[in-house]
Amino acid sequence: MSAFRPCGIVTLTTDFGLEDPFVGVVKGRILTRFPTARLIDVTHAIPPQRPAEAGFWLARCFEYFPAGTVHVAIVDPGVGTARAIICVAARGHALIAPDNGLLEPVVARSPDCEIYELSAATLAALGIRAVSATFHGRDIFAPVAAELAAGRLSPDALGMRRAMPMNEPPAARAATEAGQAVSGRVITIDHFGNLITDIDSSRLTLLREAHVTIGGRVIPYRRTYGDARPGELIALMNSFDTLEIAQTDGNAAATLGLGRGAPVLVWSSPLPVERNPL
Amino acid sequence: MSAFRPCGIVTLTTDFGLEDPFVGVVKGRILTRFPTARLIDVTHAIPPQRPAEAGFWLARCFEYFPAGTVHVAIVDPGVGTARAIICVAARGHALIAPDNGLLEPVVARSPDCEIYELSAATLAALGIRAVSATFHGRDIFAPVAAELAAGRLSPDALGMRRAMPMNEPPAARAATEAGQAVSGRVITIDHFGNLITDIDSSRLTLLREAHVTIGGRVIPYRRTYGDARPGELIALMNSFDTLEIAQTDGNAAATLGLGRGAPVLVWSSPLPVERNPL
Amino acid sequence: MSAFRPCGIVTLTTDFGLEDPFVGVVKGRILTRFPTARLIDVTHAIPPQRPAEAGFWLARCFEYFPAGTVHVAIVDPGVGTARAIICVAARGHALIAPDNGLLEPVVARSPDCEIYELSAATLAALGIRAVSATFHGRDIFAPVAAELAAGRLSPDALGMRRAMPMNEPPAARAATEAGQAVSGRVITIDHFGNLITDIDSSRLTLLREAHVTIGGRVIPYRRTYGDARPGELIALMNSFDTLEIAQTDGNAAATLGLGRGAPVLVWSSPLPVERNPL
Repeated sequence: MSAFRPCGIVTLTTDFGLEDPFVGVVKGRILTRFPTARLIDVTHAIPPQRPAEAGFWLARCFEYFPAGTVHVAIVDPGVGTARAIICVAARGHALIAPDNGLLEPVVARSPDCEIYELSAATLAALGIRAVSATFHGRDIFAPVAAELAAGRLSPDALGMRRAMPMNEPPAARAATEAGQAVSGRVITIDHFGNLITDIDSSRLTLLREAHVTIGGRVIPYRRTYGDARPGELIALMNSFDTLEIAQTDGNAAATLGLGRGAPVLVWSSPLPVERNPL
Repeated sequence: MSAFRPCGIVTLTTDFGLEDPFVGVVKGRILTRFPTARLIDVTHAIPPQRPAEAGFWLARCFEYFPAGTVHVAIVDPGVGTARAIICVAARGHALIAPDNGLLEPVVARSPDCEIYELSAATLAALGIRAVSATFHGRDIFAPVAAELAAGRLSPDALGMRRAMPMNEPPAARAATEAGQAVSGRVITIDHFGNLITDIDSSRLTLLREAHVTIGGRVIPYRRTYGDARPGELIALMNSFDTLEIAQTDGNAAATLGLGRGAPVLVWSSPLPVERNPL
Repeated sequence: MSAFRPCGIVTLTTDFGLEDPFVGVVKGRILTRFPTARLIDVTHAIPPQRPAEAGFWLARCFEYFPAGTVHVAIVDPGVGTARAIICVAARGHALIAPDNGLLEPVVARSPDCEIYELSAATLAALGIRAVSATFHGRDIFAPVAAELAAGRLSPDALGMRRAMPMNEPPAARAATEAGQAVSGRVITIDHFGNLITDIDSSRLTLLREAHVTIGGRVIPYRRTYGDARPGELIALMNSFDTLEIAQTDGNAAATLGLGRGAPVLVWSSPLPVERNPL
C-alpha cells in the first residue's frame, strides 16, 4: 500500500441533499478543527438507503482527486445503532464511511488496501463526546476527517485493522465468446437520463457484435455516441468504463420507463433474439 | 460579548436556489474584494418569503462554524424598499441580513449580542455605489461581507447600534407537569421528509410519557429512532434539539400530508386522547 | 486587450446537474494539476442542448469575478465529434468552452477580445492522452483550466488565433421613438419564475410609456418592483440589465404558462393595443 500523506482536501459524498443546512454544518465542523481544509462535494444526491450507489461512484471517482485526499461517505440507515465506522487506506487516499458495505466497491478494486475500524478510544482521545443519535456526519465523521486531513491522525491509528466482510457476490464471470452472456443491473440514473449499470468493460472485452437486452428491448452495443442516429437507444461503455444505456438527444430512463435495479443482459450472436432472455 | 476576530470564512444562506448564477455572482463579488475568502454554502433552498426559516436554521447552525465566521443571510422580499440591513455580532460570529426578522432567532439565543444597522455613510465609505433595485446580495451584502471577513470593517463600524424590535411572541412556556401541553408549528421539512418543529427540548424537559398530536393523529414521543418499528411515525428530539416528526424507512411529510405551518401539540397523560386538542 | 494574469480562481458553468459526481470529478482533476485552485460554481443547471443560455449568463456574469479568473463552460452536445475547443481572452479573464457558439455573447460584448483554438499539439505537450469520448470536462477542460489558472499556460499558447464565426444575427436595432418596437425572446426562467429575455436595456433607452406584449397579454413596463401591486405582472430591467417579466409575490412563468423561446415585444404608444403584435 502507498502510504497516506494528506494533501488537505476533503471530499463529501452523502444522501443529505442540498435543501437543508446539513452539508454546510458538516463543513463548518471540519473547518473548526482544520481551518485550511479544502472541501469538495462529490454528490449529496445518493438515494437514502442505497449505500451501494455511493460506493459504486466513489470506487470510480476517488482516484481523480489528488493523492492524500480524505473522502467522507455518509449513507447511513443504521445511524445510532451499533454499526461501526471504517477507514479504508487505498492507493494513497483515505476513505471513511459507515461499515454497511458502502466501501466494498473500493476494496474490491484496491487489493492491497488496508481497513481500520474507528475505536471508542480514538474518539475519546480526539475529544469527541456528546454525540447525537442521528447526525454522526457532524459529530463523528467531520472531526475524524479533519484530523486525518490535517495529518494529526493516520488511518492506522483509528483502531484495529480488520478484513472487509465481503458481502458482495464474487466478481462476476467475464464473457469471452459468442453465445455467452453477461448479466447485471442498473445501479444509477444520471442527470441526462442515462441508465448506468454495474457491468464493467473488463467483462465484455472479447464480445463482438454484442447486443443488450433491457426492459424487453434489444439495443445495439456501440463504441461511441457518434454512431447513433438522433433518438436512437444505444448501449456503450461510458467514461467510467461501465456499460450505460443512452438515448441520443433524449432521456433513456424516461423512454424505457426503467429505474434503479432493472436487469440488463449483454450477449452476442448466436444467442437468438427470439429466446428473449429477460 | 466576545469580540469578532475574522477567520476568513463566509457562509451563505439564501432563497436564490442553485439553478441560476446568482449564488456564483455573489461569491465572485466577495472574492473580488477579498481574494482569499473561504466560502461555504449553508443552504440556498429557503422558500422565498420565509425569512423566519432562514433564521431558524442559522440560529441552530452558526456555532458549528469557527469563531470569526461571517454569515450572510438573504431572504429579502423587501429588496429595493427602505428596509434596513443589520449585522448581529454574537458569540464571536458576525451575521448580516435584511432587517425583516430573519435574525431574531439568533438574537433570542444570544442575550449579549450586539446589533448594528448598516448606514449610507458606511456604504459610501466602502465605495458601494450604483446599487441595483433587485440584487442587494451582489451589490451590498457581498462587498460588506468581504470587508468584514477581511478584517477591514468591524461590526460596530457599520452604523448605529440598536435594539432588535422583537416581533416574535415572548418565549413560550415550558411544560413541566403531566396534564400540561406545549404547542408549536412545523417550521421546515427536510430532505428526508422529517417535519421539523419550533419546539425546543428545553420546553419538554420534565414531560414524561409524552405524546404528540399532529394532523389529527397521536404519535408517540421517543428518545431515539432505535425504539421505532419500520414504518412507524415517531416524534423525537433531533440533532438540533428541536422536536421532529419522522417515519422510520419512510417520509413523514408525505405520509401525513402535512407541510410548513402545521400545528403540533405535545402533551402527557392524563390529558385524554378523546379530547383531541387539534 | 488587457493581458490575462491568473488569480487562481476557476469558475464552472455546465449542464451536468448536481445529482451525479461529474462536477466533483472535474474539480478533482483541476486540483490534481493545480492544488491551490479556488473553485466556484456559477451554475450546473443549464439545460442540455442549450449552449446559448450558458453564454447569455457568462457574458453578464464573468466580470463580477476578479480579473485573472478562468471560466470553464461546458454545454457540449457535440462531445466526441470533431468540434473544436476555444479560449476567449476578454477583459483580463480567460473563458474556455466548446466551439458551438456558447461564447458568442461574451465576444459580442468584448470587442477587443482574442480567440484561440486548442490544438492537438498543446494537448500532447500537456500530457493529455487517453481522452474519453463522452467526458471532455474531466479529460480536457479540467487539465487545461488548471494549467491556465496556475499560470503555466497562457491563452495565446493554446493554439492558432482565429476569428469568431458570428452565427448570431447582428445586434438588433434599438427603438428610440414612440411607435417603434423591439422584439426578442425569453432566454431563461429563474428560480423565482421570472422570465428573462435577451432584450438589453441599451435597446430601450429612449422608449417612454412602454408596454410589453408576451403570451397574448399586454404588461406595463416599470422601472422597479416598488411600483407594482401584489400579484401584478410587470416588465422591468433586472440587475443584469436585461428585460424581465416578473410577478410580485408570484411566479410569472407559471401564471403565463410560458417558457424558454417565447417571443416578447416591447413597444410604446401610439402603437395601438388592438393591433396585437404577437
